Amino acid sequence: MPSKEEAGPGHFPFPEEGRRRVVIEGVWPEIDGGRFAAKRVVGERLVVQADIFGDGHDEVAALLLYRHQSEQQWRKTPMRPLVNDRWEGSFVPTEIGTYLYTLAGRIDHFETWKHDLAKKLDAGRNLEIDILIGAQMIETAAERAGDDSENLLRYVERLKEAPDDPSALAIASEELLSELMAIHHDPKMTTHYEKELRLTVDRERALFSAWYEFFPRSVCSGDEGHGTFAECEKLLPEIARMGFDIVYFPPIHPIGLTFRKGKNNSTTAAQDDPGSPWAIGAPDGGHKAIHPELGTLEDFENFVAAAAGYGIEVAMDIAFQASPDHPYVDSNPAWFRWRPDGTVQYAENPPKKYQDIIPFDFESPEWPSMWEELTDVFRFWVERGITVFRVDNPHTKAFGFWEWAISEIKRDYPDVLFLSEAFTRPKVMYRLAKLGFSQSYTYFSWRNTAGEMEQYLRELTTAPVRDFFRPNFWPNTPDILPEFLQYGGKPAFVIRFVLASTLSASYGIYGPPFELFINGAVPGKEEYIDSEKYEVRCWDWNNPNHMRDLIAAVNAIRRENPALQSTWNVRFCRCDNDNILAYIKATDDRSNILLVAVSFDPFKPQTGKIRLPLDELGIVPGHPFLVHDLLSAENSIWHGEWNEVELSPKGMPARIFRLRPRLRREQDFDYFM
Amino acid sequence: MPSKEEAGPGHFPFPEEGRRRVVIEGVWPEIDGGRFAAKRVVGERLVVQADIFGDGHDEVAALLLYRHQSEQQWRKTPMRPLVNDRWEGSFVPTEIGTYLYTLAGRIDHFETWKHDLAKKLDAGRNLEIDILIGAQMIETAAERAGDDSENLLRYVERLKEAPDDPSALAIASEELLSELMAIHHDPKMTTHYEKELRLTVDRERALFSAWYEFFPRSVCSGDEGHGTFAECEKLLPEIARMGFDIVYFPPIHPIGLTFRKGKNNSTTAAQDDPGSPWAIGAPDGGHKAIHPELGTLEDFENFVAAAAGYGIEVAMDIAFQASPDHPYVDSNPAWFRWRPDGTVQYAENPPKKYQDIIPFDFESPEWPSMWEELTDVFRFWVERGITVFRVDNPHTKAFGFWEWAISEIKRDYPDVLFLSEAFTRPKVMYRLAKLGFSQSYTYFSWRNTAGEMEQYLRELTTAPVRDFFRPNFWPNTPDILPEFLQYGGKPAFVIRFVLASTLSASYGIYGPPFELFINGAVPGKEEYIDSEKYEVRCWDWNNPNHMRDLIAAVNAIRRENPALQSTWNVRFCRCDNDNILAYIKATDDRSNILLVAVSFDPFKPQTGKIRLPLDELGIVPGHPFLVHDLLSAENSIWHGEWNEVELSPKGMPARIFRLRPRLRREQDFDYFM
Repeated sequence: MPSKEEAGPGHFPFPEEGRRRVVIEGVWPEIDGGRFAAKRVVGERLVVQADIFGDGHDEVAALLLYRHQSEQQWRKTPMRPLVNDRWEGSFVPTEIGTYLYTLAGRIDHFETWKHDLAKKLDAGRNLEIDILIGAQMIETAAERAGDDSENLLRYVERLKEAPDDPSALAIASEELLSELMAIHHDPKMTTHYEKELRLTVDRERALFSAWYEFFPRSVCSGDEGHGTFAECEKLLPEIARMGFDIVYFPPIHPIGLTFRKGKNNSTTAAQDDPGSPWAIGAPDGGHKAIHPELGTLEDFENFVAAAAGYGIEVAMDIAFQASPDHPYVDSNPAWFRWRPDGTVQYAENPPKKYQDIIPFDFESPEWPSMWEELTDVFRFWVERGITVFRVDNPHTKAFGFWEWAISEIKRDYPDVLFLSEAFTRPKVMYRLAKLGFSQSYTYFSWRNTAGEMEQYLRELTTAPVRDFFRPNFWPNTPDILPEFLQYGGKPAFVIRFVLASTLSASYGIYGPPFELFINGAVPGKEEYIDSEKYEVRCWDWNNPNHMRDLIAAVNAIRRENPALQSTWNVRFCRCDNDNILAYIKATDDRSNILLVAVSFDPFKPQTGKIRLPLDELGIVPGHPFLVHDLLSAENSIWHGEWNEVELSPKGMPARIFRLRPRLRREQDFDYFM
Repeated sequence: MPSKEEAGPGHFPFPEEGRRRVVIEGVWPEIDGGRFAAKRVVGERLVVQADIFGDGHDEVAALLLYRHQSEQQWRKTPMRPLVNDRWEGSFVPTEIGTYLYTLAGRIDHFETWKHDLAKKLDAGRNLEIDILIGAQMIETAAERAGDDSENLLRYVERLKEAPDDPSALAIASEELLSELMAIHHDPKMTTHYEKELRLTVDRERALFSAWYEFFPRSVCSGDEGHGTFAECEKLLPEIARMGFDIVYFPPIHPIGLTFRKGKNNSTTAAQDDPGSPWAIGAPDGGHKAIHPELGTLEDFENFVAAAAGYGIEVAMDIAFQASPDHPYVDSNPAWFRWRPDGTVQYAENPPKKYQDIIPFDFESPEWPSMWEELTDVFRFWVERGITVFRVDNPHTKAFGFWEWAISEIKRDYPDVLFLSEAFTRPKVMYRLAKLGFSQSYTYFSWRNTAGEMEQYLRELTTAPVRDFFRPNFWPNTPDILPEFLQYGGKPAFVIRFVLASTLSASYGIYGPPFELFINGAVPGKEEYIDSEKYEVRCWDWNNPNHMRDLIAAVNAIRRENPALQSTWNVRFCRCDNDNILAYIKATDDRSNILLVAVSFDPFKPQTGKIRLPLDELGIVPGHPFLVHDLLSAENSIWHGEWNEVELSPKGMPARIFRLRPRLRREQDFDYFM
């Protein structure tokens, strides 16, 4: 038989087995034709759909097959038909790592025969021959059935003896027979989907996490000096009280001196300017070293251990770029680009120059050793207890590198998570997520109307994006002070905080500027003035003007309400006021239903009527239901579809309600009576 | 280096070349991940789009590569960026057969350098080093450039001597340099899309065809006897006058006697009932024989030759099923299913039995010989001059068979076309088209409101369907007399005819019942009473109550107006009357613009205002333009967006206008003045 190549394009070789009559196509999830893995966390159900059908009108049976990479045998779960030849099956992954899944379908001759038998019986047809056909089919299955063959042969006898009346159908319809016939069908007639698809299963924190970013150098004791890890430890109780589970530091490596940036991004640094932590590398070391003023490697490991004591992980910022003083520049000059004048090529965005930063040259002839070394940077810190990395500007490094590096690290340390900081074009952001990043920064910061936000969430929470891109919403970062925060006063901070923390199961803030309502910007830009990126700021943690209590309350609500622990379950509600975004977050079983209503107006009170999808929520129309305002702890009783909310910048521009619909059981009917 | 398997699922081997920084994804057309070919006809442009981008901010260059299967070398055409990293390229296939296409992308270092140079020049930066960088780049390219190296080295010299001013940029911007640098880029850095995609290119008639189906046995001379091919020849001038280019016969093979059907599908046939032509096979022969009463094989070949003289092809109906008397039943009993009582299994849809028809068993252990023989049926008739096949119920035969059989036939006879008669579920119909059928029957017959029709056309004419499924619209068939035709009188026939022939470039009618307005149905069904399927009907070709002149007019309009020769260019217009469907059909260059307006009401006159997309049509708003009514030959002058049409069941319930917008050239300004 000629191979496909020999036969020429478009010509199909004679198949080995031409009797597999079922077709499987339109499988989802199948990212880029199976090129990339879909993503789930442990305990999060993967629903697989496909178009499955045979020629003619016979009954079809289909299975979803799946296994953890460590398993040899496929697990099988039946799929069920939805409508229009679409089938669905699902499983809940229980282990971190890679799962494989695929599908199988076959003509179900036995079920077809049974259905036809019933129809013929109804029509009063003589069934003698048909009963024999079924008996023959069972007899053939018995030949394949091993231990079950005796059971099957007993059915053959019973059918052969059955009279031509409903009793034959009764025998044929016995559950055991159907089960045995499903198990012992002819395997060579089964169509196996041609691809084995991959699912990356991460631990729960890949989906549900609250990040707190701060500059350790700004955590100064009494005096105004450079902060240390030891000082940072003292903040842990308060960060834990606020309810964060990831603390994330900007780079903590030695900072270059050559072309060091001064305050407010000045190209000339004063003698005592500390420089940007992203200008990584000095004679003291590079990406595997600790900036001496912050402490020692041991101090850092102590901090990580102390954080763990509070259930907090430390996320490290990995920025693959070098200061001109980075040891790599001497040890591995081929990793960088050199100019005809013998100087190393600095970063630029013409006509702007960023001379304090040297990019790695991903077209270097020595790229293999560079890939190995950069991957080893992750390995170095994983070995020191780090399991979460925030990757700086991954979109300016070769895509192929990320796919390989992340898979290398995850093979050896499957619980490691990577957050992609790619503020760039959508296709690029999505590609990085497909390549393996566990979470990604988003355009959240620039969605400033309820309509924009709803539209963006729809994109993020539906296929295909939903299956490979896990958003992490940040109202601010050291690089981004959005206009909304600059001009909206404190209510703007509350609004953006509640949106980030309830729309996305993963979110983060850059503090203390966030909780202290810091909103001073470089004129005309969305950047902080006097940014910590270029100087040590000594934030006053005792300043009473902060929103730490609200943060603590919302993080507690997130932990207590599983509906907020998924990003995919948002369901927007109609509201008669365009300034208000209202959405339901509910668990699949509806045991936990929240309604969040947020005003996008930080200046004036807004009132709106919100339409609840009562039917979807299992609420009996017309019956009252209890509504807890989880932030104010007030209760109210609502009824009907449309309910009014009042949101005020001075009081609360956002509300999180828990709805407690009356259950539809008789014994609950006296609940309100 | 470990292979992907050795490395484990989800783990990526170290690549051979890690410096290919461009990514190509989201390619379209790419049917089912490249599993199936897209379709075009000769001369029909294939537009290929893809997301193409690199890391960082460098310029990207991309090529579309394509070749006919008979060519070794790829042809290349540049792609151009649209928006948001989406790129587009196209080519026009000129040969029948299979084309392959794929894409290539690379970082364009030279263009990046040129752009940066311009920006730096604007900013007044010193360019000395940058000019040297460019010169170096050109020097490296010269090493790869063979005959062009001298030209390139001349640029190196000129650049090195250029002063630090705009003259350097002028040299760098010379077209020849850009061309040479594009040709001699470093090929090892180019990303090739990982798939070679297939395009099936058919001859033009696969897209643009007008079919006329009739039962040759009903073409009787003076007496009421059985028609013959010789009699059929006499109809050819009139069929040609009507403008059809394909004549299609129901099966012309010997008809079985056992369980032969009588008039109106009766299970008992009278002595002289001719039987259904779909009950194929008798002692006289099967799928390769001619029913003796129609004539001999030679008569048939004569008819085919005579039709060819009128530019008409003959389409043959291939129905893979047998009467109990088919020679195959004896010669190849294993191709059928046998019942325990020793009888052969007839077709059934329980509780209904179709005992005159025996299906082939596609699960036969002797399926290979059956596939070969069934494919040989096509080959047999191709060798006798048939190049178009209408395949009966392909959805009740194994999908795998069609893919193989069609590719076998098209390999040897690439101009053969296959029409799929699968009136079944959408996924099944689409699958058959993907497997290789050139055209497909559709749901057209049951789309009876303007809204339904528009929605259906949108589905058919946009991706993905548009790229593999070519519709063929039939207002009626021997199996289908839609309710609309049963109750709507003559205007209903006109309406459905104009819709079919102008919405789809391929359409067909089953005549003479269609042009004679025959609308008698089996009560409560969409089937003809006294159907030709079960008896000889002697249609009166001299009956003056027919619509043959309208058919001739519309087919002439189709031939004269290239806008009607494509199905994909339909553009629906807003209309203030829901009973009217209005659509523009225009060629890409707008040299041929038609407006079709059809009332869906066969009973009452309908008037509606239609909004023309003036801007898309190149019509200057406010300027008058000439409108020819191609059916009435009346002219009018319209101006403005909204224009009224009147459609009347008594006059014409459908209009085909040719719009002749004034060209936007000065010299045409006196056209109306």
